[in-house]
Amino acid sequence: MPDYKAPQKEMKFVLNEVLDFESHYQTLPGGDEVTMELVETIIEEGAKFSERVIAPLNRIGDEQGCTFDNGVVTTPDGFKEAYAQYVEAGWPSLSHNPEYGGQGLPESLGIVMSELIGTANWSWSMYPGLSHGAMATLEEHGTQSQKDTYLTKLISGEWTGTMCLTESHCGTDLGMMRSRAEPNDDGSYNITGTKIFISAGEHDMAGNIVHIVLAKLPDAPEGTKGISLFLVPKFLPDANGEISDRNGVNCGSIEHKMGIHGNATCVLNFDGAKGFLIGQENRGLNCMFTFMNAARVGTAIQGVAHAELGFQGSLAYAKDRLQMRSLTGKKNPDGPADPIIVHPEVRKLLLTQKAFAEGGRALVYYTAMMVDKAAKADDEKEREEADTLLGLLTPIAKAFLTEVGFESANHGVQVFGGHGYIAEWGMEQNVRDSRISTLYEGTTQIQALDLLGRKVLMTQGDSLRKFTKIIHKFCKENKSNKGVKPFVSKLSDMNSEWGSITMKVGMKAMKNRDQVGAASVDYLMYSGYVTLAYLWARMAVAAQLKVDAGQDPEGFYKAKLMTATFYFERILPRTSSLVETMLSGSDNLMALDAELFSVE
Amino acid sequence: MPDYKAPQKEMKFVLNEVLDFESHYQTLPGGDEVTMELVETIIEEGAKFSERVIAPLNRIGDEQGCTFDNGVVTTPDGFKEAYAQYVEAGWPSLSHNPEYGGQGLPESLGIVMSELIGTANWSWSMYPGLSHGAMATLEEHGTQSQKDTYLTKLISGEWTGTMCLTESHCGTDLGMMRSRAEPNDDGSYNITGTKIFISAGEHDMAGNIVHIVLAKLPDAPEGTKGISLFLVPKFLPDANGEISDRNGVNCGSIEHKMGIHGNATCVLNFDGAKGFLIGQENRGLNCMFTFMNAARVGTAIQGVAHAELGFQGSLAYAKDRLQMRSLTGKKNPDGPADPIIVHPEVRKLLLTQKAFAEGGRALVYYTAMMVDKAAKADDEKEREEADTLLGLLTPIAKAFLTEVGFESANHGVQVFGGHGYIAEWGMEQNVRDSRISTLYEGTTQIQALDLLGRKVLMTQGDSLRKFTKIIHKFCKENKSNKGVKPFVSKLSDMNSEWGSITMKVGMKAMKNRDQVGAASVDYLMYSGYVTLAYLWARMAVAAQLKVDAGQDPEGFYKAKLMTATFYFERILPRTSSLVETMLSGSDNLMALDAELFSVE
Repeated sequence: MPDYKAPQKEMKFVLNEVLDFESHYQTLPGGDEVTMELVETIIEEGAKFSERVIAPLNRIGDEQGCTFDNGVVTTPDGFKEAYAQYVEAGWPSLSHNPEYGGQGLPESLGIVMSELIGTANWSWSMYPGLSHGAMATLEEHGTQSQKDTYLTKLISGEWTGTMCLTESHCGTDLGMMRSRAEPNDDGSYNITGTKIFISAGEHDMAGNIVHIVLAKLPDAPEGTKGISLFLVPKFLPDANGEISDRNGVNCGSIEHKMGIHGNATCVLNFDGAKGFLIGQENRGLNCMFTFMNAARVGTAIQGVAHAELGFQGSLAYAKDRLQMRSLTGKKNPDGPADPIIVHPEVRKLLLTQKAFAEGGRALVYYTAMMVDKAAKADDEKEREEADTLLGLLTPIAKAFLTEVGFESANHGVQVFGGHGYIAEWGMEQNVRDSRISTLYEGTTQIQALDLLGRKVLMTQGDSLRKFTKIIHKFCKENKSNKGVKPFVSKLSDMNSEWGSITMKVGMKAMKNRDQVGAASVDYLMYSGYVTLAYLWARMAVAAQLKVDAGQDPEGFYKAKLMTATFYFERILPRTSSLVETMLSGSDNLMALDAELFSVE
Repeated sequence: MPDYKAPQKEMKFVLNEVLDFESHYQTLPGGDEVTMELVETIIEEGAKFSERVIAPLNRIGDEQGCTFDNGVVTTPDGFKEAYAQYVEAGWPSLSHNPEYGGQGLPESLGIVMSELIGTANWSWSMYPGLSHGAMATLEEHGTQSQKDTYLTKLISGEWTGTMCLTESHCGTDLGMMRSRAEPNDDGSYNITGTKIFISAGEHDMAGNIVHIVLAKLPDAPEGTKGISLFLVPKFLPDANGEISDRNGVNCGSIEHKMGIHGNATCVLNFDGAKGFLIGQENRGLNCMFTFMNAARVGTAIQGVAHAELGFQGSLAYAKDRLQMRSLTGKKNPDGPADPIIVHPEVRKLLLTQKAFAEGGRALVYYTAMMVDKAAKADDEKEREEADTLLGLLTPIAKAFLTEVGFESANHGVQVFGGHGYIAEWGMEQNVRDSRISTLYEGTTQIQALDLLGRKVLMTQGDSLRKFTKIIHKFCKENKSNKGVKPFVSKLSDMNSEWGSITMKVGMKAMKNRDQVGAASVDYLMYSGYVTLAYLWARMAVAAQLKVDAGQDPEGFYKAKLMTATFYFERILPRTSSLVETMLSGSDNLMALDAELFSVE
């Protein structure tokens, strides 16, 4: 794997110059303490930790994987020690509630930190990542006592958390869940059932693991309305909140997976394990949404991470590797051949990765602003508006960024040619690690139904209009900005088209519900390309400002404008085909009888 | 991995009803002996061998991989025994010269057999696959003595072969080769150098390995015009052609790769190994083209193989896995949920795999006809015409089919959701095994330059016109065929567009050579989609004939027509975006200074 170098300049560019996080933080309660100086210090320290402590463990994690022996999971060499350093430095508490030991910084800063650790070593970052979701759930839905006992230990990092939803026969369809919760006289519950695919479900990095578990009460209503949420610790705490009796939850095995070998994916057997209700009975799924939404934004980061890592690795190789001559004459006449970065198609692969990594970062940070606002804005209307936008952007960011992140990871391999297929270069690991991202936390197909069905059509397009208005306003404001005219003009056209194709799809859906499904993934990808065009246009405006002011000694802003050109001319045209296919109806998918898919 | 079931009905449909191989064989010398009865027997026997003997070794091969110990490579359990059975049954000799023990059947039948064994177990199939290339090279360029000694043993399968081109610093750019050949007084040469990425370079399956090696003579001209080709056996044969002294070629290590673990990818050290010149001095690359072209068609098959295997696995799962309800109401009211094949986006994934597997098969077989004709047609003009078409179709088939094969393999994972990421289902192995196919035997980017630069533009479009004429003729013949009208009409439009965009790209290229590179991969993919549209239209015509005649009791032909509709409405529109991007110029790729790709 190439040595990861945190793209600090890129990160600061988006935070400071494109999205103006300083002003954003000013609008949040207590946000005036979050100066850009503080933000930059966090990035610098986070970069150091990521580059020096966990990036070197990325390949080790892949090669060794986790090992399982009679219920005990051992993480790869160095993982445990790195986690101790992470806790020691106070990272787990960054964006959590000061009442329970948190630093109370905005969630968006936690997301920036997640990008750093996630790009350096995705498998490792999932251990704190899962904890983060458990914390968010307890902060919002836990009782005072649960917060006192568990949340404090999670925030300090002493304990970690998990999220236990999936069973072997139900992933997306949680209504079919079989895990049971029997109430005890003392108000606790006995949880029995088997959960699978539990990331970080068992490991040796922390003293205790707090499982957040979905299960059904006796006589609960059928389906998703009969699911409750429980807290089930690996070790029950004593009266002082310290680790005491071992609870009846055990790791039965870990999965052999394509990638993310450093993270333990566990089968967890709950055998009358003692659990505590979170929130109300039968309302577990509602509480879980807190977790799921955070997890989806968290997974969107994974798209950026693998695009960035692929880009860093293959860029270095493309400058170094000499092979063939440029079609327009020798560029390295003293060498035996030219570096492969002279070849147009190699550049296309690199620029695609660059455009998705940088554009994706901007989209994630933009989404993170909505997370902050939805949670903390003073004004209720502003909170609601941010929540609506967040609801729209979450499936786009999750599914679109992981799809193009996987594409980018593959381009990383392609630039290396045959060498990309060999483990030692790290590019194939990046592909394997990336592949999970379009599957977990809701597949691309599920995100697409969420976006088109629930978020757009069920609101009669209201959420989309809220966003297209923002884009419209941006285009209007920058209409006479000469340097960015091609971007603004194209974006404006796409923004109108987005509205009109939504209308068309909506009309078809009124006649036949399968039209929603049949259009959904194309619609989601289309939405992703337009959303990224908006963010690329914003980056171009910020860059043009500096170029116009003669403040571009290194060519950073010039490169930004050229990458925007690449995005608009080479990536955005993918929407043309998507419009054609999404409007092609559902018959071409639905007419074939299931039995006729294969006739022997 | 799902149990592979050879799609015999599909194969026979293409051979008999779509491409009419019986008539094709009649036109070849000696081809009247190749009855369709014989062809079908070969398919049936090949299917049995593939399903029963080597498919069960596919997962074992991935899990165990090859092991290396002090120069000795051990293949996974069962590989050696399966090869012995393969040799026993006479498979290696299928399409080779009867003078040296071959069965003299057309090359196209060997390609059909390669599909069967390659889909069942790609890693295993590479051992005989590499031999096949070595045989083709010796048949065409070897001396009588080389044929007598080596070709006979390769054809019997007693020995296997390899192809040694790549060195660590040169893959595509063979002109930079460093391996040396020093002439000896007895007419042999001493070969010294290190070759990498040698598939099947060392193993325990056969008594001897015949390496076909590129190296440079002392004082050879610089670059590719100074490369010669040598035969270097692992064991030198004695006067009777039997194994004798160990030659100075040794395996230094094997690579740790993303996939195809069952095939040993070797570093081979030649240390003054005795070698024998094949063909003329300094003309090695020309001889190697025989090998490379065969290998490229062989790799095209890999695209079909992984699409087919992904399709078989995920189709079975999609019918079985119950999750959520159809958007249009319960389809499995007695069950707890509907099988996921009711969901439009799951169908899209399945149909995409199906369209590429079946369309790809038709393209490979069509290309195989050109292979037969180019080698054996009676008439010289016909041979030349076939050779031109083969030259055009080879990069398309290789690059396009492996790209969409990889896409399809990924869809196989996606249908399984999170389960697809787990090793036991075999779908992730299919992705990993597939990933090599766009890299070796010339990356997609190299194939694209070969297609657009060499095959199309360097012939002033002549090769393309030869093919578009064939498509034009087909469209004209089927113009009034009502059942297939939408296909024929769309294909006819695309066929014209193909010519006109080629003109446009050619005009741009005259001004700036980088325009060739900048358009090339989009052009190749575009060409692939149109070529596959032609083959899907031909399949539709064949299917419509049976439907019209009321000869479709099982719905096989109906399914074929519906898959054609899917292809034309859901896949072919991808060309719209490709046209936009390929004509967007080269500035968006070339303008950015290499140093500005990343500015920190």
